[in-house]
Amino acid sequence: MEYFGNWSYPTQIKFGNGRIKELAETCLANGIKRPLLVTDKGLASLPITLNAMEILAAGGVEAALFSDVDPNPNEKNMQDGVAAFKAGDHDGVIAFGGGSGLDLGKMVALMAGQELKAPLNSVWDLEDVGDWYTRANTDAIYPVIAVPTTAGTGSEVGRAGVLTDSKTETKKIIFHPKLMPVTVICDPELTVGMPPMITAGTGMDAFAHCLEAYSSPHYHPMSQGIALEGMRLVKNNLLNVYKDGNDLVGRAEMMSAAAMGATAFQKGLGAIHALSHPIGAVYHTHHGTTNAVVMQPVLNYNRSVIEQRIDEAAAYLGIKGGFNGFYDFVGELNDALNIPKNLGELGVDVNDIDRLAAMALLDPSTGGNPIEMTLENTKELLKNCF
Amino acid sequence: MEYFGNWSYPTQIKFGNGRIKELAETCLANGIKRPLLVTDKGLASLPITLNAMEILAAGGVEAALFSDVDPNPNEKNMQDGVAAFKAGDHDGVIAFGGGSGLDLGKMVALMAGQELKAPLNSVWDLEDVGDWYTRANTDAIYPVIAVPTTAGTGSEVGRAGVLTDSKTETKKIIFHPKLMPVTVICDPELTVGMPPMITAGTGMDAFAHCLEAYSSPHYHPMSQGIALEGMRLVKNNLLNVYKDGNDLVGRAEMMSAAAMGATAFQKGLGAIHALSHPIGAVYHTHHGTTNAVVMQPVLNYNRSVIEQRIDEAAAYLGIKGGFNGFYDFVGELNDALNIPKNLGELGVDVNDIDRLAAMALLDPSTGGNPIEMTLENTKELLKNCF
Repeated sequence: MEYFGNWSYPTQIKFGNGRIKELAETCLANGIKRPLLVTDKGLASLPITLNAMEILAAGGVEAALFSDVDPNPNEKNMQDGVAAFKAGDHDGVIAFGGGSGLDLGKMVALMAGQELKAPLNSVWDLEDVGDWYTRANTDAIYPVIAVPTTAGTGSEVGRAGVLTDSKTETKKIIFHPKLMPVTVICDPELTVGMPPMITAGTGMDAFAHCLEAYSSPHYHPMSQGIALEGMRLVKNNLLNVYKDGNDLVGRAEMMSAAAMGATAFQKGLGAIHALSHPIGAVYHTHHGTTNAVVMQPVLNYNRSVIEQRIDEAAAYLGIKGGFNGFYDFVGELNDALNIPKNLGELGVDVNDIDRLAAMALLDPSTGGNPIEMTLENTKELLKNCF
Repeated sequence: MEYFGNWSYPTQIKFGNGRIKELAETCLANGIKRPLLVTDKGLASLPITLNAMEILAAGGVEAALFSDVDPNPNEKNMQDGVAAFKAGDHDGVIAFGGGSGLDLGKMVALMAGQELKAPLNSVWDLEDVGDWYTRANTDAIYPVIAVPTTAGTGSEVGRAGVLTDSKTETKKIIFHPKLMPVTVICDPELTVGMPPMITAGTGMDAFAHCLEAYSSPHYHPMSQGIALEGMRLVKNNLLNVYKDGNDLVGRAEMMSAAAMGATAFQKGLGAIHALSHPIGAVYHTHHGTTNAVVMQPVLNYNRSVIEQRIDEAAAYLGIKGGFNGFYDFVGELNDALNIPKNLGELGVDVNDIDRLAAMALLDPSTGGNPIEMTLENTKELLKNCF
């Protein structure tokens, strides 16, 4: 099996080791001659980023680097990025990195050309609420080429970005169909340098996307199949790459699983994300790691509705014992990845349960959960996470 | 479970009973004000077609109908369609029907605006060979809205159309990324009137797409997951809709399975299609039915390579006995659908084996088969189909 391919959906994806070499020609094929490469501070000086800049220069593409991006990108980062984009007379964005670089790259592409007219006055007026995305001028959105350097968020194949509102300290989703990157370069070699803890957390994020999409009651059988296969890839590979970061087969399969999770979750997310979002907002915990910590309690919470479907998934994944076997598998994987055993170990205060439960019910993921989330059963669920 | 949804990949899909009502607004949303609705002769006078025309008129969309389309559309049909398109000053195509209406609609959208310059002089210069598709003027291709009325071909989510070259009596694939419909309306109610024999043949076509994509050695895990889930939908629903054409849940699941098969097979097809194409060309047999007839022998032919993967699929589908159980399931499903038991029953002459084997090796599907196809083993395979 060669882990290499050109895929046409959900967008054009160039998958395989070494394909970062195609970055310059990919820009030119999409009409981008002067891209702004947006990434985060941590990545800016790493060899994989410098190498990408060299590939662009050698290919006759005049690129500049913007890396003033925080781990949870905010509107100040976006404004600075837009200023850099305009100052450099850029014509497209290369969104490069983990979630923060990818998401802020999209925000810059969205806002660099917008001329919002009153009563619209900021990116928050384009939040993913109803059809607010139609307020944006589609023609003014610049093309994005996405290059993921982690395997978890899957933002490289998503039509949204997350931006933190610094005033309210809330994360908001900004959606527009044209934020889907025109081309994605998935080069597993770029993820080889991820430290084991990040490999574990991002990998469990991909698994959570797949599990929640698979379990969601909405009808989207393509997503259901992608989610199932994505779980298989994580099951067979995450522990291997955690133990050996240079396992290139495992890195490739995990990079696929990440893209698959994000593709699948238009079918819906659920209580894992509904809990993880407020916990992350209040405690600044790692998103994927938080997902992993609450995964077993959420499986039990939804058991009455999802048991048969999880039995079927377990059978495909080669896990014996149906739902119970699957539940045990999640616990064993978490243990092997040194994921904290409960929310207490993660640093969450048990006295915050009421507040976190109330915040969870406001999270958009709540609507995709297999059973109805109420204040009572969500408090109970949170108790079971300690 | 409500069988209803809006899906964003592989293109925009509006899925659900009654969604044909959105046809006019879908045209307008895509900038189409004067569409040519292309369908085949058989469908032209049916209520579902007349109803679609009424919906367009009521929605302020000036549409015309073109239905001079043969069951295997040829370049004469295409030229007539292009002439009708130009005469009516149309600005887009509604491709409506089974494979023939969908494919010819795409061909009209492709060619209506092309001005080929020497040495290019016909649609055959745009055949799916290497990068010939780049010879077409992308900007001159009109948008297509697809409305499937069968559940098998999946052409509604494909970037190609099949056109028969009348001179050589060969079917040729014409590919262009922009042939992917901008929007698909999947309304399961439109398939309720399909006769049982067509339900069976088209349903087994969808199953063959899924099985071959799932078994292909190429790396495309999203397609692998979609193919697996597609097989599950066919297994659980095809016999039901064969027995009761009004089973709307089954019709919905089969319509999904058809779109999933065609989405998945960019991962590859294999010997089922490599045999079925020449048999269809020589004997004018039904494509899906032919696929069904050769399916069991092809499973045996590939067994050494695919056994473990089919074991896993069987486990997910709830089929006991792994590969052997899956093999038996295919035979039992074929029997229940009254599919001919072998190529002799289908009307193929056993003396044609050498010729058909030679033709099969030239078929593009050959490259996706799990084991290498040779003249010797393909002749042997064909013998086993009698």
